[in-house]
Amino acid sequence: MKELRIDPINKDMIVFAENRSKRPMDKCNKDMNKNSINGYKKDCPFCVGNEEQCELETFRLGNDKEWYVKSVYNRYPIIDDSSEEIYGLHEVMIDTNRHDGSFYNMTEIEFEYLFIMYKNRYTELKNKKNVEYVSIFKNYLRQAGASLEHPHSQIVTLPFIPPEIQNEIHISKEYFDMNNKCLYEGMINEEIELGERVVYNGTNFIAIVPSATKYTGEIRILFKNKISLDEISEIEIKELSSLFKNLFKKIHYVEGDMPFNIYIHTYPANLDCKKYFNTHIHIIPRKYSFGGFELGTGVYVSSRKPEDIAEKLKLT
Amino acid sequence: MKELRIDPINKDMIVFAENRSKRPMDKCNKDMNKNSINGYKKDCPFCVGNEEQCELETFRLGNDKEWYVKSVYNRYPIIDDSSEEIYGLHEVMIDTNRHDGSFYNMTEIEFEYLFIMYKNRYTELKNKKNVEYVSIFKNYLRQAGASLEHPHSQIVTLPFIPPEIQNEIHISKEYFDMNNKCLYEGMINEEIELGERVVYNGTNFIAIVPSATKYTGEIRILFKNKISLDEISEIEIKELSSLFKNLFKKIHYVEGDMPFNIYIHTYPANLDCKKYFNTHIHIIPRKYSFGGFELGTGVYVSSRKPEDIAEKLKLT
Repeated sequence: MKELRIDPINKDMIVFAENRSKRPMDKCNKDMNKNSINGYKKDCPFCVGNEEQCELETFRLGNDKEWYVKSVYNRYPIIDDSSEEIYGLHEVMIDTNRHDGSFYNMTEIEFEYLFIMYKNRYTELKNKKNVEYVSIFKNYLRQAGASLEHPHSQIVTLPFIPPEIQNEIHISKEYFDMNNKCLYEGMINEEIELGERVVYNGTNFIAIVPSATKYTGEIRILFKNKISLDEISEIEIKELSSLFKNLFKKIHYVEGDMPFNIYIHTYPANLDCKKYFNTHIHIIPRKYSFGGFELGTGVYVSSRKPEDIAEKLKLT
Repeated sequence: MKELRIDPINKDMIVFAENRSKRPMDKCNKDMNKNSINGYKKDCPFCVGNEEQCELETFRLGNDKEWYVKSVYNRYPIIDDSSEEIYGLHEVMIDTNRHDGSFYNMTEIEFEYLFIMYKNRYTELKNKKNVEYVSIFKNYLRQAGASLEHPHSQIVTLPFIPPEIQNEIHISKEYFDMNNKCLYEGMINEEIELGERVVYNGTNFIAIVPSATKYTGEIRILFKNKISLDEISEIEIKELSSLFKNLFKKIHYVEGDMPFNIYIHTYPANLDCKKYFNTHIHIIPRKYSFGGFELGTGVYVSSRKPEDIAEKLKLT
């Protein structure tokens, strides 16, 4: 039984999901490639051939025993249908059939399969009853919150628009009302003009190191077109896959096997905000820890300039 | 030269302090007690006898060479007077002269010296020109953002009320305007009545595990009286010191040598909000890592009920 509570002094939103503490934790560390043989590990629930260790499958590309990617229900869900105040679905999307795969070594084709799965699961879940927002995210390595090492992403539906999205939408709406133009479109144009923080500038996407971010080394991928994740075309998936492959190769070259999170911010299911908001992806390095100053004040300290970080990550 | 920037898409506030990357990092890990002999370490700038390795002293209890606690300027400050938009002072307060001291083994007297120093530094810095807020915090172990192992706290002045405090004050003001009573006083009464989450209930302070907090295992110490940190009396310092000694002994018993942050939330320098806001201290365990779901949505997941945690930590 899940429970939703609000911290009265700051309105933080907390889901209590007691079963989550029972989820298994494998090694999930830097030596993880050593734990599998030819990309297979016997007791990994996400490896090909171990399907019986998994919950029900909801999506698959490939055959029964020769799939490339698949999505299954999460055995230890953050939310489920046990509570009225906070309910939804939680699936695990297996990024690749290779146990030793990672965003740092996946091929362009593997990324294409991944994004086809993201689109499929997003589209299906967004249209379920009482869904207000669908969150897609990924945790890589323990420091970033991962519990299992086989590469996977996650998708969760929420019966409300979560605070982080509310905040971003509120700010972009305010900007639009004041300036009669879209904050995101303006930002894309300014970054291209300035050039100093652009890591990649393509037909449909731009990747930047934001002028300011509380997460030192964050990379943001902005969708140039006003599309939701369910509207992404084949050609856009191809561009995004190529970008991800090259970007993560470059990150690995500069930063090594760095823990990271990814989360996609897109339009809520039932709110029309395309005029002033753009879908975007946050890539968050997790090698730094916040201290008491950051937690206590909400002011974040960085000792590296975004312009210097972008210079090193630039894709040519 | 410090620079303040705002993330345009979510209004996060970031201070760029490039010199911070040059600060030395010692071992600062669980084996740190092994690094000193009789509480002294030769190359530690915070040990007695190594004063020449430190910046200018601003406060001391005890003699020149036999002090108990002292405060010095931070050599790698988050903010300083180099910039107009973000300026202030940043001191390091050395918690105890023992290199191998920690909140887990400090005596009541040591805590008293510490809080006398907190009060002194807070009072002096609050009354400096252009100070709107004074933040006191502490990082214990690397996971909590500490760079040096000799036990120390920090104090930073800010030329504005930081977002986290703005938010708490805004919420408590709203509550007061709606209910014509103080959120904090109400909470104190309710927690005492309920009893389930109270870890300590004394004359001037109450320690609770909050009904909801994004940081699993957080303990909050609420000041029952409407006093700012500069108004804390000798008798209150004695109670707080006894509470800290017993509480951290208990935490150590239950959780071991757990990394943590502490930060004090008190009244801004020039805003009268005593009617609806109370000074309080957050104690934040740092053994958990947020994942992409938390970062991406602002919804936090906990698998442990505050009531169960309080049961284990209760001081009898």
